[in-house]
Amino acid sequence: MARNITTREKDYSQWYLDVIAAAEMADYSPVRGCMVIRPTGYALWEAIQRELDGRFKELGHQNCYFPLFIPESFFKKEAEHVEGFAPECAVVTHGGGERLEEPLCIRPTSETMIGHMWSQWVHSWRDLPVLNNQWANVVRWERRTRLFLRTSEFLWQEGHTAHETEAEAMEETMRMLEVYRSFAEDFLAIPVLVGEKTESERFAGAVKTFCIEGMMQDGKALQMGTSHFLGQNFARAFDIRFEGRDQKLQHAWTTSWGVSTRLIGAVIMVHSDDEGLILPPRMAPALAAVIPIFRNDDEKAKVLAFVEKTLAGLLGEDEVAASLTRFGNSQVQQLFYAQASGQSIVVDRRETMRPGEKHYFWEQRGLPLRIEVGPRDVDGGNLVVKSRLDGSKEVVPAAALTRGYLDAKLAGIQKAMYDRAKSFRDANTHACGSYREFSKFFEAGRGFLRCHFNPSSQAEAQIKTETKATVRLIPVGHTPAPGTDVFTGDPSTTEVVFAISY
Amino acid sequence: MARNITTREKDYSQWYLDVIAAAEMADYSPVRGCMVIRPTGYALWEAIQRELDGRFKELGHQNCYFPLFIPESFFKKEAEHVEGFAPECAVVTHGGGERLEEPLCIRPTSETMIGHMWSQWVHSWRDLPVLNNQWANVVRWERRTRLFLRTSEFLWQEGHTAHETEAEAMEETMRMLEVYRSFAEDFLAIPVLVGEKTESERFAGAVKTFCIEGMMQDGKALQMGTSHFLGQNFARAFDIRFEGRDQKLQHAWTTSWGVSTRLIGAVIMVHSDDEGLILPPRMAPALAAVIPIFRNDDEKAKVLAFVEKTLAGLLGEDEVAASLTRFGNSQVQQLFYAQASGQSIVVDRRETMRPGEKHYFWEQRGLPLRIEVGPRDVDGGNLVVKSRLDGSKEVVPAAALTRGYLDAKLAGIQKAMYDRAKSFRDANTHACGSYREFSKFFEAGRGFLRCHFNPSSQAEAQIKTETKATVRLIPVGHTPAPGTDVFTGDPSTTEVVFAISY
Repeated sequence: MARNITTREKDYSQWYLDVIAAAEMADYSPVRGCMVIRPTGYALWEAIQRELDGRFKELGHQNCYFPLFIPESFFKKEAEHVEGFAPECAVVTHGGGERLEEPLCIRPTSETMIGHMWSQWVHSWRDLPVLNNQWANVVRWERRTRLFLRTSEFLWQEGHTAHETEAEAMEETMRMLEVYRSFAEDFLAIPVLVGEKTESERFAGAVKTFCIEGMMQDGKALQMGTSHFLGQNFARAFDIRFEGRDQKLQHAWTTSWGVSTRLIGAVIMVHSDDEGLILPPRMAPALAAVIPIFRNDDEKAKVLAFVEKTLAGLLGEDEVAASLTRFGNSQVQQLFYAQASGQSIVVDRRETMRPGEKHYFWEQRGLPLRIEVGPRDVDGGNLVVKSRLDGSKEVVPAAALTRGYLDAKLAGIQKAMYDRAKSFRDANTHACGSYREFSKFFEAGRGFLRCHFNPSSQAEAQIKTETKATVRLIPVGHTPAPGTDVFTGDPSTTEVVFAISY
Repeated sequence: MARNITTREKDYSQWYLDVIAAAEMADYSPVRGCMVIRPTGYALWEAIQRELDGRFKELGHQNCYFPLFIPESFFKKEAEHVEGFAPECAVVTHGGGERLEEPLCIRPTSETMIGHMWSQWVHSWRDLPVLNNQWANVVRWERRTRLFLRTSEFLWQEGHTAHETEAEAMEETMRMLEVYRSFAEDFLAIPVLVGEKTESERFAGAVKTFCIEGMMQDGKALQMGTSHFLGQNFARAFDIRFEGRDQKLQHAWTTSWGVSTRLIGAVIMVHSDDEGLILPPRMAPALAAVIPIFRNDDEKAKVLAFVEKTLAGLLGEDEVAASLTRFGNSQVQQLFYAQASGQSIVVDRRETMRPGEKHYFWEQRGLPLRIEVGPRDVDGGNLVVKSRLDGSKEVVPAAALTRGYLDAKLAGIQKAMYDRAKSFRDANTHACGSYREFSKFFEAGRGFLRCHFNPSSQAEAQIKTETKATVRLIPVGHTPAPGTDVFTGDPSTTEVVFAISY
């Protein structure tokens, strides 16, 4: 079989692209910087959406949809915001064959449009809190793009909330940060650091920006989600005012928070190996690929009958019957394992591929389990269950292939993936006391460095120029002992995490 | 209570906008022709998405995502397509502060981009069929807009498929048309006519366009979904070729099909009344609003305890407990009735509104049922269940408020809504044999006219100018007796349906 994936050791960047190509997850489009998300990749976005959307709704957020187009003048109402986003805007100048009176930006983010609409909807404290979210495409013109990680158009969710008090808005900011942390760790099996951005990395227009950061297998950091406390900045710019319980007119306190299709890049870069994609079971659209092995029609009949009977025992005869008609003329049969999450088990009945090609096909697509059944397995009444993560094989009697068995197996894989990623991150996280050590570290390799540091835009800019490293975050919930600023040698009571980031 | 909805009789157009405003479903944005979909409206789109997406996936379609931007040159590759869509394009000329080399259209539909990508992915008959779908925003610059029905930006799904043979593509076209028909009738409770468009109403670039058409309460027709057989037109324009089973290189046969947020407009216009929105139970995000009635703290404790106990009996104690923490400081408590569909029952505990205001609030939002509980109801152990559709009230003992009771009640309402809409449509559908009668009919009123007619662009244009009516469709599965063309008097074996449309 031709080797179509470069090893991580040889070329990590190429490996990443090869994993995506081998799994047919995404492709570049003819428009520079815009990607096409193919079914294998999009199914991961659907898994992310389903899980996060449920979590948002449990907390009372309601989805809505604001327009793609934002008048250029809106951006100018918040000084820092326009400075941050104007250079990245795609601009519509013509519509319906005519030049527009005012050019329109394609939304890079929607604080301005939402602020404008809220100013018409929010009048009294009774109208608060407003807890909105939208799943949408946004555009930020990028010069250097990379599939999933940085593209001119990407898909994301942007939560926007407005509150009566500063304390409530701050609470919401931290609540959503925690939603992102637990989602990343429990669902994506990616351990993340949680903290606050320094001023120079803050969202344009925010008072405080918080984030979660993961470590990729090359030791680089990836910002995986942000939650912003916007204070009254946008409320002032867009006149979001309400009559308070004290009957005084006052500005609302707002937040915004988002994650994007970038998370798919994180999953690839944290978990996959030189054979291709590896998916954490909780997010995998398909949990197992059943591969029937046969050399002639007799064996085929025997093996397929055994597979059908085993799956009927596991999932019910109705589901097997439904799955056989589900895909019309397609030969990859899909059986739903869990209706709520849409997760399935596939049976690859294609006769245009050899079993070895099928192994390869599903391995590259990252399915947690592969289940092989050949004529001799049928004779023994067994199936062979192979783990994508560690390649271990287990011979399982058909009667033992139960939901209990599979659930436990999948939970074990989920935990092992998290543990493996955490061990890797911890092994590549170091404390650092001097700038000489700091420089040498980033010259030689990658990883997280925990250092005492007094955030300052100037120092951060110089460090970035010299080492490419930036402050990823100031950890929250951690009071460090006093120490010495790694760069200036000044006394410092702030500990930060430096890394080279995507 | 102030009357905020104009009656249908007085001004149907204003009534429609008032219903939307009263339910807070949508609002105009500051960008002309673009709407903001507010939570009440967006929840309906989510219900539509959930149901249709499941139906598409059952048939083997896979979701994916193609870029928002399409190079202008792509449109020019299919002659009819560019003629149809170029005048409606919004054009991006600048990105990242620079003028683009080639202007980009915001997608009005994605046949061109998808055709381009397929040409790179499809090589052999083994790669077919390709069954793709995307949920996305599209932009068609409109001069006259109307919330949900016609806006410059709207949300939709666009299915795109490629097949080995003409017969398979034609089969897919009709299969998806049937999906739309059954979805409209079973889920939205809207009876629709199913048929083919005449050449002058065909999708730009299609060989055949099929559609479903509903009748609104003003007797006008609304096109609610289309399914196009594209033949090899786009395959030729974008070079989608594959090696067939006969080892010859040949062009694929493609289809496309879509429905949009316009369906929300249809639901409003078919079902609602002068009191506001009425939702068919199967699509309603919330099925019932429980309104506790009390005048003092003692009554409040008594009524709320009874409500909680009754709901715990219906939905389980766990769900009641979860719902009480679900919304933080919000006083509208949401309990999930059906996890799969996300449908809920709400308890309006707000103390800033009187019971009468709450009745009004939920009535205007179209919830199928209202459940009132006052102190005297508690004494009798009863609840009062009121139907939004016909206003009928039923006194139900708490123990009888079961899933069985509610499911039957809701199914009855669903059926009654469909039957009512169908009776209305049938009563406003007439046969017509002469153009004099035809002209008088559309002068005086609205409705569907079934006539013999030999489709011709010229005749259709003249009829439209004279009467505003157009051929909505040529019914499928119906072989009419020979007759006389209503316009020319020529012999005709084709029967069509004329109406004035949105």
